[in-house]
Amino acid sequence: MDDPAPTSTALPADAASLASRLTSGDRRALARGISLVENGDPIGHELVSGLYPATGDAHLLGITGPPGVGKSSLMGAMVKDLRVARPDDRIGIVSVDPSSPFTEGALLGDRIRLADHFLDRNVFIRSMGTRGHLGGLAEASLQAALLLDAWGADEVFLETVGVGQSEIEIARIADTIVLVLMPGSGDAVQALKAGVMEIPDIIVINKADHPMAKTMHAQVRSILTLDRREWTPPIVETEAVRGEGIEKLWDKIHAHREHMAQDGRFEARRRANLESEVFTLASARALRRLQARVEEDPRLREALDAMHRRELDPLSTTMRLFEEVFSS
Amino acid sequence: MDDPAPTSTALPADAASLASRLTSGDRRALARGISLVENGDPIGHELVSGLYPATGDAHLLGITGPPGVGKSSLMGAMVKDLRVARPDDRIGIVSVDPSSPFTEGALLGDRIRLADHFLDRNVFIRSMGTRGHLGGLAEASLQAALLLDAWGADEVFLETVGVGQSEIEIARIADTIVLVLMPGSGDAVQALKAGVMEIPDIIVINKADHPMAKTMHAQVRSILTLDRREWTPPIVETEAVRGEGIEKLWDKIHAHREHMAQDGRFEARRRANLESEVFTLASARALRRLQARVEEDPRLREALDAMHRRELDPLSTTMRLFEEVFSS
Repeated sequence: MDDPAPTSTALPADAASLASRLTSGDRRALARGISLVENGDPIGHELVSGLYPATGDAHLLGITGPPGVGKSSLMGAMVKDLRVARPDDRIGIVSVDPSSPFTEGALLGDRIRLADHFLDRNVFIRSMGTRGHLGGLAEASLQAALLLDAWGADEVFLETVGVGQSEIEIARIADTIVLVLMPGSGDAVQALKAGVMEIPDIIVINKADHPMAKTMHAQVRSILTLDRREWTPPIVETEAVRGEGIEKLWDKIHAHREHMAQDGRFEARRRANLESEVFTLASARALRRLQARVEEDPRLREALDAMHRRELDPLSTTMRLFEEVFSS
Repeated sequence: MDDPAPTSTALPADAASLASRLTSGDRRALARGISLVENGDPIGHELVSGLYPATGDAHLLGITGPPGVGKSSLMGAMVKDLRVARPDDRIGIVSVDPSSPFTEGALLGDRIRLADHFLDRNVFIRSMGTRGHLGGLAEASLQAALLLDAWGADEVFLETVGVGQSEIEIARIADTIVLVLMPGSGDAVQALKAGVMEIPDIIVINKADHPMAKTMHAQVRSILTLDRREWTPPIVETEAVRGEGIEKLWDKIHAHREHMAQDGRFEARRRANLESEVFTLASARALRRLQARVEEDPRLREALDAMHRRELDPLSTTMRLFEEVFSS
């Protein structure tokens, strides 16, 4: 259901030619570029590197929440609304499913609900699973978002499934983070209450005609009153499959952007997000190097075996591996 | 509510003396040892390192699940049961709350339910929050579990709050992992269904007299039938505050241990757990070193600033930091 990968004869293979096609709006060059960054191909990195100075204009909208709450339906309805309100805007969607081994076709079931937009030339959708991302999902989704930005997307959706830290990390680079819940999302509400989950910028309660929706709304509101940040996250009730509440959601997103535009908040947040992302990517890189070195170096393997024989404690083993690999 | 930290005059400060007191069952030496590892004190590491050959006999029982499902009540009931069934057994409890900034006193509200056991000399309870762990929570909880093992604990409970990957990572070193849910844990059930959450060894549905408990039981069962591992996780219904279902839960835990004792499964799992833990600790260490170096080295700071000026893309920035810090 994704845009098909272009055939190798149809496109130039070098970063500069791809970049020039991509910035002129060529969807196939974009699709190729995203495939390259997904595969950890150096040309993909060269492409993003060359395009990076031209990025920064797209709004990054993070959509996160537990599985099954209707995130894809919601995005489908949001895109539909945006296509009417701003017909010339380009829209990019990166859907990340940490549970799926499939690179393309992840969230397929959900994505069928986005099917209205598959033939729309101004909307580009790409799903990512866990397989085939040499640099990890965080790296691939960041690079894909930058390519969509360079392609000319005005709005980039970053969708992630889950309620834990590692899933939220992917949405964290977004300028506005929307947490989607539904009646029955008791764990997420408890996690917000207990402070285990960070407070997002906007909370959507989808499937709002469920009898328990009002109760959940009240619960979430009472949690938010304890939050003392400058921005109090609004709660928006939606019924995504019928397109209800979507206009109000966009209003709240724009209100959040206006809030962020003041007093340098937007720049400060982007800086903090990008720095945090760089540290995440670097520590993922450190982990990969460690694992690779243990595979190839019998001395490191022997340190792990000594740990299993209870001769070397785990922290000393860690330190030995760390020093061997990183303090050459 | 934790065991009080011993006064400095009462105990020797060197690792060897602490080790000998700790292995002879001295609770104050144990409390001091855990404080040392929490603070990242080298003496704490020396202590664990010296004691490590004498560890490995304790069973590690991971208790995980969303906030509010009654994990602490459940542990309280399990400890009560175990104290009757095996009065000579020693029990250690490490409660990890990633949302709490408090090192001691985390989960205080929950832990009051464990109060029956605070004066029990065979039960040692320690809570950990996020503050003050130089090596991170994963490192501190592993080291604390090893100290409890060396102290002579037969059973070590490792409790973590949350349903995300990072929380589960802490429980992952356990020999048996119990996921606690309650009616209303819709997100966790969806996460199991979607494969976002790993399947634990045993699933507890607590608050089993809730009208929706049977429905949840059926939902969880239907998810587990899709799991094709050798061990099918049993579902146990409990009513922890009244002590119901606890004996059955212990039976299932013992059944899991008997299963693991066959065909070298137990050894294989412990090896895999420890190796995975070492990689987790090493990459946390890499992250800390990166952050420290960026603080002190203006050239690294300048690379981040170039990224903010859109001159250097995030992945190139990551690679530059990585090479500067780790490929000296």
